[in-house]
Amino acid sequence: MHPDPTTLVSFFRPNGVALIGASGDPTKLGYGILVNLLHPQFGYPGPVYPVNPKAEEILGRPCYPDILSVPDPVELAVIIVPAEMIPSLLEDCGKRGLKAAIIISGGFREVGPEGEERERLCLEIARRYGMRLMGPNGIGVIDTHTPLNTTFAAGLHGLGYIDFVSQSGALCGGIIDWAQARGLHFSRFLSIGNKVDVSESDLLDYLAADDHSRVITLYLEDIRDGSAFLAAARKASLHKSVLALKSGRTHSGQAATASHTGALAGVHAAFRAACKQAGLIEVDGIENLFGAALALAHQPLPRGNRIAILTNAGGPAALAADALEPAGLTLAHTGPETRAALRAFLNPSAVTDGPVDMLGGAGESHYRRALQALLADPANDGILLILVPMVLIDPQAILQTLVSVIRDSGTRKPVLACLMGEASLKGAFAVADEGGLPAYRFPEDAVQAFGIMRRRALWLETEHPLPEPPSGLAPQRARDLLSAARRNGRRALDAAAARALLEAYGISTPQDRLATTPDETARFAAEIGFPVALKLASPDILHKTEVGGVLLNVSDEAAAREGWQAIVRRARAAHPQAEIRGVQVQQMVTDGQEVILGVKRDPVFGPLVMFGLGGVYVEALADVSFRLAPLSRQDAEEMIGEVRAAKLLEGLRGAPPADRAALVEAIVRIGQLAADCPEIEELDVNPLMVLPAGRGALAADVRVILSEV
Amino acid sequence: MHPDPTTLVSFFRPNGVALIGASGDPTKLGYGILVNLLHPQFGYPGPVYPVNPKAEEILGRPCYPDILSVPDPVELAVIIVPAEMIPSLLEDCGKRGLKAAIIISGGFREVGPEGEERERLCLEIARRYGMRLMGPNGIGVIDTHTPLNTTFAAGLHGLGYIDFVSQSGALCGGIIDWAQARGLHFSRFLSIGNKVDVSESDLLDYLAADDHSRVITLYLEDIRDGSAFLAAARKASLHKSVLALKSGRTHSGQAATASHTGALAGVHAAFRAACKQAGLIEVDGIENLFGAALALAHQPLPRGNRIAILTNAGGPAALAADALEPAGLTLAHTGPETRAALRAFLNPSAVTDGPVDMLGGAGESHYRRALQALLADPANDGILLILVPMVLIDPQAILQTLVSVIRDSGTRKPVLACLMGEASLKGAFAVADEGGLPAYRFPEDAVQAFGIMRRRALWLETEHPLPEPPSGLAPQRARDLLSAARRNGRRALDAAAARALLEAYGISTPQDRLATTPDETARFAAEIGFPVALKLASPDILHKTEVGGVLLNVSDEAAAREGWQAIVRRARAAHPQAEIRGVQVQQMVTDGQEVILGVKRDPVFGPLVMFGLGGVYVEALADVSFRLAPLSRQDAEEMIGEVRAAKLLEGLRGAPPADRAALVEAIVRIGQLAADCPEIEELDVNPLMVLPAGRGALAADVRVILSEV
Repeated sequence: MHPDPTTLVSFFRPNGVALIGASGDPTKLGYGILVNLLHPQFGYPGPVYPVNPKAEEILGRPCYPDILSVPDPVELAVIIVPAEMIPSLLEDCGKRGLKAAIIISGGFREVGPEGEERERLCLEIARRYGMRLMGPNGIGVIDTHTPLNTTFAAGLHGLGYIDFVSQSGALCGGIIDWAQARGLHFSRFLSIGNKVDVSESDLLDYLAADDHSRVITLYLEDIRDGSAFLAAARKASLHKSVLALKSGRTHSGQAATASHTGALAGVHAAFRAACKQAGLIEVDGIENLFGAALALAHQPLPRGNRIAILTNAGGPAALAADALEPAGLTLAHTGPETRAALRAFLNPSAVTDGPVDMLGGAGESHYRRALQALLADPANDGILLILVPMVLIDPQAILQTLVSVIRDSGTRKPVLACLMGEASLKGAFAVADEGGLPAYRFPEDAVQAFGIMRRRALWLETEHPLPEPPSGLAPQRARDLLSAARRNGRRALDAAAARALLEAYGISTPQDRLATTPDETARFAAEIGFPVALKLASPDILHKTEVGGVLLNVSDEAAAREGWQAIVRRARAAHPQAEIRGVQVQQMVTDGQEVILGVKRDPVFGPLVMFGLGGVYVEALADVSFRLAPLSRQDAEEMIGEVRAAKLLEGLRGAPPADRAALVEAIVRIGQLAADCPEIEELDVNPLMVLPAGRGALAADVRVILSEV
Repeated sequence: MHPDPTTLVSFFRPNGVALIGASGDPTKLGYGILVNLLHPQFGYPGPVYPVNPKAEEILGRPCYPDILSVPDPVELAVIIVPAEMIPSLLEDCGKRGLKAAIIISGGFREVGPEGEERERLCLEIARRYGMRLMGPNGIGVIDTHTPLNTTFAAGLHGLGYIDFVSQSGALCGGIIDWAQARGLHFSRFLSIGNKVDVSESDLLDYLAADDHSRVITLYLEDIRDGSAFLAAARKASLHKSVLALKSGRTHSGQAATASHTGALAGVHAAFRAACKQAGLIEVDGIENLFGAALALAHQPLPRGNRIAILTNAGGPAALAADALEPAGLTLAHTGPETRAALRAFLNPSAVTDGPVDMLGGAGESHYRRALQALLADPANDGILLILVPMVLIDPQAILQTLVSVIRDSGTRKPVLACLMGEASLKGAFAVADEGGLPAYRFPEDAVQAFGIMRRRALWLETEHPLPEPPSGLAPQRARDLLSAARRNGRRALDAAAARALLEAYGISTPQDRLATTPDETARFAAEIGFPVALKLASPDILHKTEVGGVLLNVSDEAAAREGWQAIVRRARAAHPQAEIRGVQVQQMVTDGQEVILGVKRDPVFGPLVMFGLGGVYVEALADVSFRLAPLSRQDAEEMIGEVRAAKLLEGLRGAPPADRAALVEAIVRIGQLAADCPEIEELDVNPLMVLPAGRGALAADVRVILSEV
């Protein structure tokens, strides 16, 4: 990430724009861009300079042979010429003192090593001159407030409050086309393409501080610098809602992304964790992305989860009600006063509780009075207006009324509309768009938007402290243990070192002693107290269970002696070459709840911490949650909350509740350990025994794999 | 359900239609209906008779004072007059020999007891004259093939192949309005309203056999006769795809439905199970309902799950690829020949594997040749065409080409399109609609439709035998046990009777003896073999664990003696009044996998069988599945497959796989027991111990609750 995000202003409000590759030929992109720049109503208001050595004048403007000959003021270059010409043109831009360039042309990393080298060169030139680059291989910038449109896509005209940052230029084209027909308005469209310089992280920084937008939406295919993204996203989401749609979420999707951008998509779990920790809202489709953005841009956030429904048709209201629960919302019941008020003017058969169903005859005055009553009703936190076209009603007039009721009420309650239909509702949709009343075609979409608004409200209502290192760490001890293993050429820590590593970060392990003979085994077991567990001690055998190297519930001295012999015999048989140090005699923890903590280093986001309940829940159900390290206590709490089987920690069927505080502490400490020690590639505490409340947690077994040197 | 579905033809192709309540006043519904009936192009081609005593002529047609004076031929009455007049009018219709009547007016069960009584009366009159009734409180029938439109909703004109049956009239209005703008065509719109006579089940029967439709879509709010629905749905789904959207799926949704229709909505689990067992496809939103119907109506089913993607933009393709996996599909890789063929004419930077990304410059000929190559490629089972509007391409011309390539190829491979945008794609959408190429605005919607097509194909590829009673049942023994309990005034069977009930249906239980003294306990335990379980025997205490009435792993005679005393002491302390018969000494099954089988009687669909893994999986994770009894072996197999924790049955971490055949058998037998014995209100086998393969399954504990008499 570039150090100074304010330099990005040159992309949005430049003082003079040169178009290198301008063309008078309507079949060329350099023509389309110039038309947009010069648009009489929505074009750039400052000076525009076509640059093309082969023309003297284009679209009535004087054309310059090169950027060096363009007069002052000029701040931004838009470049649409073959890729191989671009490095030397960028040199010229630098010499001419430009502050920013948008490279629209393709022919860079997406075409292979040669293009990658070209991209690197462009960045080097830009850095040398202190110039910012957007692209290459993106369609550029639309800013409806400046206004400025450096793309060849026409049609994004109305002033809006939603920023869209997209790693796919083509997607921008499709969305502009769709938004135009839907009355969806944007503040900015930013196509970052191959993001050789300006990335989503830089833009998040800049856009968060900008007052032309209220919501930032992102379409991403890969993230290259995980920590920059996390930091920028954290900061941005304090200021405004940020919604993210990322492709490469599934196996097949990842393949598609990889072939498309030539970029290695990060594992999705890490991205998802980053969103959660930063307060970004992840969505899974384009329609959701903009449906939610529309609501967030135009309506206040709901202060609770009780949504009232006002309708002229029961069916769509029932479908809306069904959608509430999965979206984390609940159906508001109308307060008694409201019910009385409604009964005074509604059809006697109308339903005044649950969804308020005014029936098909409801007209303008019914909608007006019912909406007024619901706005005044403290029993709801938001209102969904449903209108189905009926004969003898005028949807457009009703919408006009609804929009003015909302405006006149000065309410701080969110109102969304579902206008079910299309052919007879064009006018109604237009009135809603004009009036800042988000309107959806289907009840489910409106409810989904409400759900996302509520999530945003909950995020803002909660403190999100940054992770802080817990106390009592011995990082030097941890480093020593890891470098000792490295010196010995080991990829896996032996059991004693692994336990010592945890202890260095304040994570307790059961009592444990290494017995080298059967008699020692019996003696240690008696000292620790029966029952004990016996575990093979060998640095060369990772999966001890598979070779019969683990015995649990060993209950007396005779069994302890036999156990030593059986374990060592089996290990020798299975791995004749392995170094066998003896058998560990371990305190058995019998009354704890088994959980798993894991760490896996993500190539983009660094250490990813996993939490799940004991063995089968993880293996059979994949009921686990992830966060990036380091984590705050609250991150750890949320992680636990996401795992469905974590209910077991509350103590089911009379079992005592587990020591949740100790579990949280262990998760935080594991995260800190992983964050502090980049040598740790993978780590599994399996199981961590969470004892009954007040008694702590013990890491019963731990496996640590180091990264390759 | 009425015995003869063929009588319904009078609603669709009547010989003469009378409109009772016809009006010349354009603000009345009776005017709108008449206009639709008489529409010059899409109106009913047979005789139409306005009936209204106050007019001599309406819209140029002679008006009749009453139905009795209407001349021949007349078969169907459409009634839109105040509810209180309707019973006597129906009498007249009967006398006049009409075969069917559609009651559009409201004022029936939805307004309370008086309306309910009126509805009952109407049904009685209709039955007496052998007349069928549709409604009341629905908007009637549109049949685009006849054509006939008895509703007041204008606009559904194009000939289509999708039937829509709706319990909400208003929803019909909204959907007609939307479909009209979207170019979605229907064969029939059937608004069943309060369904006093004709229900969704009757219509499924009729529509399945009709060749004017290819897909049936349902919007339902309640089902009143579960077994009629199941039977009709089973039969219908053999003939064509049936898609169902039901409201009242969640707690809040149920409230909405109940207030809307005044009907008690069945528990959703039972409806969902009915859909699965009948081959109906349940969807969760209106857009999905019609998105899938469009694909099913116009494209062949995919023979496998490999979907190829052809695109001019990477972003939407990546999103489509992401959506494949959750929809049960996978991304097709292009075969080597196809890749070579594509490379011959595509941009060198184009991607020819994974999604075939032709890049933004792709035009008509690229789309044509690439589609031809993919249609010929055996490595895919279906093709998703994605087109994003770009400057310099003509989407409409491209669509024309694509539609003719598909037609000319005579392919049996499904092709769907995603046209991302709207403003510049109106022509392209129109061409796709005309050409029978289903086109969606967003990649996720197209993939969802593919997923539903694949589900339908899989359903058709599998045999679905009807449930058959297993062998070796002793139903008389079961009935005796139940009536004995009834005679003794018990709601719950005691343990011995409950076990005997299972044994009567061939479900094994562990060895078990009732010990009345501590010494007996020790002796029986020794005979059965240690370890044993001890369980309180009391008909009055249902939840034995809660009073400390269960001891497991009792390992010697002394412990057995002490166990008896402890259990009896605790039971007496907790429930001084309870009858305590002693302690059951039970064989401990230690090496099985614990599962739960349950039965709960649904008020609409009858006994609902539940399956889940042992205790915590059910309680903490709600990881369970449901089917209606009786079930086939295949139903039972599918039930097991739906439970995620059922992976444990395969034997994780070296455990032996469990006896799945025995589990299937136990599920089928429990279902048969529940189906045969209506006295059983609830039944829980918890746990059923499924032993290692070949060794069967044992019902370790069972609880049976009888229905109130």
